[in-house]
Amino acid sequence: MVEIQGSMPRNPKQIRAEQDAAVKSSLDKIKNKIIVMSGKGGVGKTSTSVNLSIALSKKGHRVGLMDVDLHGPDVPRMLGLEGLPELNQNRKLRPMNYSDNLKAISIEAFTPSKDEAIIWRGPLKFSAIRQFIADVDWGDLDFLVIDSPPGTGDEPLTVAQNITDAKAVIVTTPQEVALADVRKSINFCKTVKMEIFGLVENMSGFSCPHCNEMIELFGSGGGERTAKQMGIQFLGSIPFDPNVVACGDSGACYQEAHTDSAVTRAYAAVADKLSQLIK
Amino acid sequence: MVEIQGSMPRNPKQIRAEQDAAVKSSLDKIKNKIIVMSGKGGVGKTSTSVNLSIALSKKGHRVGLMDVDLHGPDVPRMLGLEGLPELNQNRKLRPMNYSDNLKAISIEAFTPSKDEAIIWRGPLKFSAIRQFIADVDWGDLDFLVIDSPPGTGDEPLTVAQNITDAKAVIVTTPQEVALADVRKSINFCKTVKMEIFGLVENMSGFSCPHCNEMIELFGSGGGERTAKQMGIQFLGSIPFDPNVVACGDSGACYQEAHTDSAVTRAYAAVADKLSQLIK
Repeated sequence: MVEIQGSMPRNPKQIRAEQDAAVKSSLDKIKNKIIVMSGKGGVGKTSTSVNLSIALSKKGHRVGLMDVDLHGPDVPRMLGLEGLPELNQNRKLRPMNYSDNLKAISIEAFTPSKDEAIIWRGPLKFSAIRQFIADVDWGDLDFLVIDSPPGTGDEPLTVAQNITDAKAVIVTTPQEVALADVRKSINFCKTVKMEIFGLVENMSGFSCPHCNEMIELFGSGGGERTAKQMGIQFLGSIPFDPNVVACGDSGACYQEAHTDSAVTRAYAAVADKLSQLIK
Repeated sequence: MVEIQGSMPRNPKQIRAEQDAAVKSSLDKIKNKIIVMSGKGGVGKTSTSVNLSIALSKKGHRVGLMDVDLHGPDVPRMLGLEGLPELNQNRKLRPMNYSDNLKAISIEAFTPSKDEAIIWRGPLKFSAIRQFIADVDWGDLDFLVIDSPPGTGDEPLTVAQNITDAKAVIVTTPQEVALADVRKSINFCKTVKMEIFGLVENMSGFSCPHCNEMIELFGSGGGERTAKQMGIQFLGSIPFDPNVVACGDSGACYQEAHTDSAVTRAYAAVADKLSQLIK
């Protein structure tokens, strides 16, 4: 385990204890922490984090969205958020308001220029993510949705170790090559003893905008089958829609622009399942 | 920099020097080393590595395909290769034959069960990848195609540091969120002084199998625009084709099953550009 290095003036154990207390105090006021994970990149994990957060907030829940994906912190672009978060009177970061019920913050604010290649070696990732979790003041929330980096390496491990009561929502696409990675994610959660809330199958079928025929871009049904095999809840299928890509690129809100699309309805259905966590 | 730990009986410097020599002797007989990289996962990096290798081998080049993607070593599944590689008389790993001109080896053989979650912390990745590169006996090759893990972290850094004359082929999809990550990959190559051969845009346009109309799933043209902006060669656009996904899942050879498809032609055109490296 990597600690903050001894070149600092204070005792590393003391710093660690203070950070532990800061993490706890930030997280204590949040009823449910949901880590959105994926075994591999490119399955629409961030898009799912963003759209689930919006769907939950539209149901009246107070939602925070925390982006800890060091290698590709895409949440600000997708939500159209610009600028830097401010500090409150306790020198904690204040998340930025997307709407009355949804605030968000991204580790992007702590990384150099967007196009810069940061070569994050393992120990650096651990302390960057940990410090980021400790330094954000969320206030009272019903849900904190955490957009975690893909894979089963240092980053999701750090998140799991620091947000110990988090539940995982695993995102996949239907093809077998992706599902192999999902099984790794599920086993990762078991190894680190993180509860799995369920599995979402993204990019699941596609209706041609010209002829309306259904096309299975990446196959279909693999997510539901894998959930059953691995004994976890299947939360639903989100169809592919090129408008999700376009809205994500421009920072427009897909669910406002497409209030009654199949994708909007699918995210609302997943949000309903998450709402059952609120007693 | 992480060295092999001192609990081993021999001098770490000596082990390191022996490994350096082994890496060099394996790589000396290979004319061109091509690292296939991507800024993010899910853009079809492995699919591109596999299909480019096949396209190069069909042009008569002797090709090796090395899969060092620790988190998702998908090359064996995509090539339909099973079993473990054998050792030669010098106790080096012998790559497996896919065809007369194409052999391949994957780090998968060195990882535990496919579905197991390996929590690869940075230093472990470094030594695993390095050892793997040192231990493979490729023989004489025109091209070694290296399927590297996505991102700009420990893994591509390790590859770049150990295969110093490698040239990068960067794979992206057309949407802006992916292109932001590509710019990071390009800057990563500049930082580690790895020459960039060019950029491939994958999943670029899609012809509906029902009505044949073109659909831009992830937008289009972003790869070519980014290549121009960043001053690197644009190698071509590969259309999306659900058959690539299906073949990748089943281990069938896409280019044999679809000899005259737009995708097969597009990979052949990229292979032509790579062939110019052979004087």
